[in-house]
Amino acid sequence: MIQTPYLLFLGDAPDQLAAKVAQGIADWRPDNAVGQFRLPGCGADVGLSDMTLDEAKAAGAKTLVIGVANRGGVISESWKDVIVEALSKGFDVASGLHTLLRNDKALVRAAEEQGQKLHDVRIPSTPYPIADGRKRSGKRVLGIGTDCSVGKMYTGLAMDAVMKERGMKSSFRATGQTGILITGEGVPLDAVVADFMAGAVEYLTPDNDDDHWDHIEGQGSLFHVSYSGVTMALIHGGQPDALVLCHEPTRTHMRGLPNYDLPTLEALRDTALPLARVANPDCRVVGISVNTKALGEDEARRYLEETEARMGLPTVDPYRIGAERLVDALVQA
Amino acid sequence: MIQTPYLLFLGDAPDQLAAKVAQGIADWRPDNAVGQFRLPGCGADVGLSDMTLDEAKAAGAKTLVIGVANRGGVISESWKDVIVEALSKGFDVASGLHTLLRNDKALVRAAEEQGQKLHDVRIPSTPYPIADGRKRSGKRVLGIGTDCSVGKMYTGLAMDAVMKERGMKSSFRATGQTGILITGEGVPLDAVVADFMAGAVEYLTPDNDDDHWDHIEGQGSLFHVSYSGVTMALIHGGQPDALVLCHEPTRTHMRGLPNYDLPTLEALRDTALPLARVANPDCRVVGISVNTKALGEDEARRYLEETEARMGLPTVDPYRIGAERLVDALVQA
Repeated sequence: MIQTPYLLFLGDAPDQLAAKVAQGIADWRPDNAVGQFRLPGCGADVGLSDMTLDEAKAAGAKTLVIGVANRGGVISESWKDVIVEALSKGFDVASGLHTLLRNDKALVRAAEEQGQKLHDVRIPSTPYPIADGRKRSGKRVLGIGTDCSVGKMYTGLAMDAVMKERGMKSSFRATGQTGILITGEGVPLDAVVADFMAGAVEYLTPDNDDDHWDHIEGQGSLFHVSYSGVTMALIHGGQPDALVLCHEPTRTHMRGLPNYDLPTLEALRDTALPLARVANPDCRVVGISVNTKALGEDEARRYLEETEARMGLPTVDPYRIGAERLVDALVQA
Repeated sequence: MIQTPYLLFLGDAPDQLAAKVAQGIADWRPDNAVGQFRLPGCGADVGLSDMTLDEAKAAGAKTLVIGVANRGGVISESWKDVIVEALSKGFDVASGLHTLLRNDKALVRAAEEQGQKLHDVRIPSTPYPIADGRKRSGKRVLGIGTDCSVGKMYTGLAMDAVMKERGMKSSFRATGQTGILITGEGVPLDAVVADFMAGAVEYLTPDNDDDHWDHIEGQGSLFHVSYSGVTMALIHGGQPDALVLCHEPTRTHMRGLPNYDLPTLEALRDTALPLARVANPDCRVVGISVNTKALGEDEARRYLEETEARMGLPTVDPYRIGAERLVDALVQA
């Protein structure tokens, strides 16, 4: 668990896209961040106050979060100077970078001297159990994608936000590094050892109130041969009561696999639902989330309408239209 | 890769069952073992000559293989004495025990002094790639179980043996510790990090001659919620041309999951085949392997006949009847 609130480190991010993690935190958990820290030449701005380390400390910040993707996998000297100074001023530091903080001797030494923590959220910090398949109390919904990177995290965060606005009991359960940094906790599922994947998901979504919803962040796709095992563990460890099908309509092949076509939404539904019912016989597909970013306004509306008519399920783009109808469908189910 | 031939260490195994790993090696790769080493009071015998370390060394043995399950997860002092002596005489040592050789300082020291290797086959020894899904040459068959521990390894080893007898090109590809010790190589799939599972299977079954068959050892079950992700990675990383359904007919619930029923063979077929066709559109279900050990002779024959008639697929117990008809089905397919 990463201590909040954060100071978001944007570094010398060349553009807004490079600061995607910081943007995600600013969008979804604004209360988790007191401000942003930018180096000269930074081309990103997530709309929070620019703060020095001392100003952020005075505002209550406990953790410096690396909210920017680095280039070439190296933590530059200019970044390192800021991180060491932050540790010396009593910040913890959290990162989802491939280059691990813990593998940098200078950072480890600075953290030890100050008694501060380095969080590498790509690496599991807990020994997870083997899944026992016991039926847990509370409700769970899982986003299932036709492919990787089609908006599963966004969909879960958006449904969680709608439920919270409505005063419902709701948690977003992060399974990837961006989600973990946004919420401050979670399981980096792709880094868990095979035997413990489903158990890690059970650990992530424990017993809860009967009217509480866990929005489990989906990963991979049952149709993506590189990562389908991770998706399978989410379906069986998560024992979801509801599935939301997630799709990006302009993709011409599976991400990173030029010879693999995307499945239809029908194929996704017919594949995922029987598998989900192994763990939860009452599971239902309740709706469809489409990432229409690459479509024009009219084209997007037409695609959503046609898909809704064809599939007989509420179909939205949670970014463009909002996730209200998905939440309505969950509540009715 | 573990150097062969082996000396099989049976230790003080209380009974034959405790020496299952050694028995597997003696049954399936008799040429891989020069003899067995037993301590006073050993209740197991795998039918090989009893040898001292010196006799085994003289017979060409290169590796002492721990062929026995230990109790309570501890390597006893009497075992340790033999292992240290073996290292000092120039043996490598290989083990699939939960207690790792490499975590015992005395063993590590002895191995380093002699320049010998300690193989803990539960732990991956190679960094595996992320799967790329590229179509590989050669043929592959995968055993798919209604449950865990229903005879998938045995089925693969038996089909491999029949092919070898017929002079066909054939390899058994181990994915668990027993299989790895039997063949001297493989991937301990349940210990691989999630993102690399399917890539590890691709690595295990590389391009091969068009008429070569890989018999990939199955793991877990698509219907076993604790391990289904591992099974999924085998299906997509293995891109099998053929599936053999594996079943144990007397089980009353999924192994270790008292509240989970076993799927029917029909449900297994209808679930596994569409998933397999994502990676290999030509995949077919070619036969059924039933472990009838718990049935009487007549009962077993009746069960096999009824299943064959119902499913329309050659149905055998490879132990009782042999795997010839499964191989015939593979060749025809």
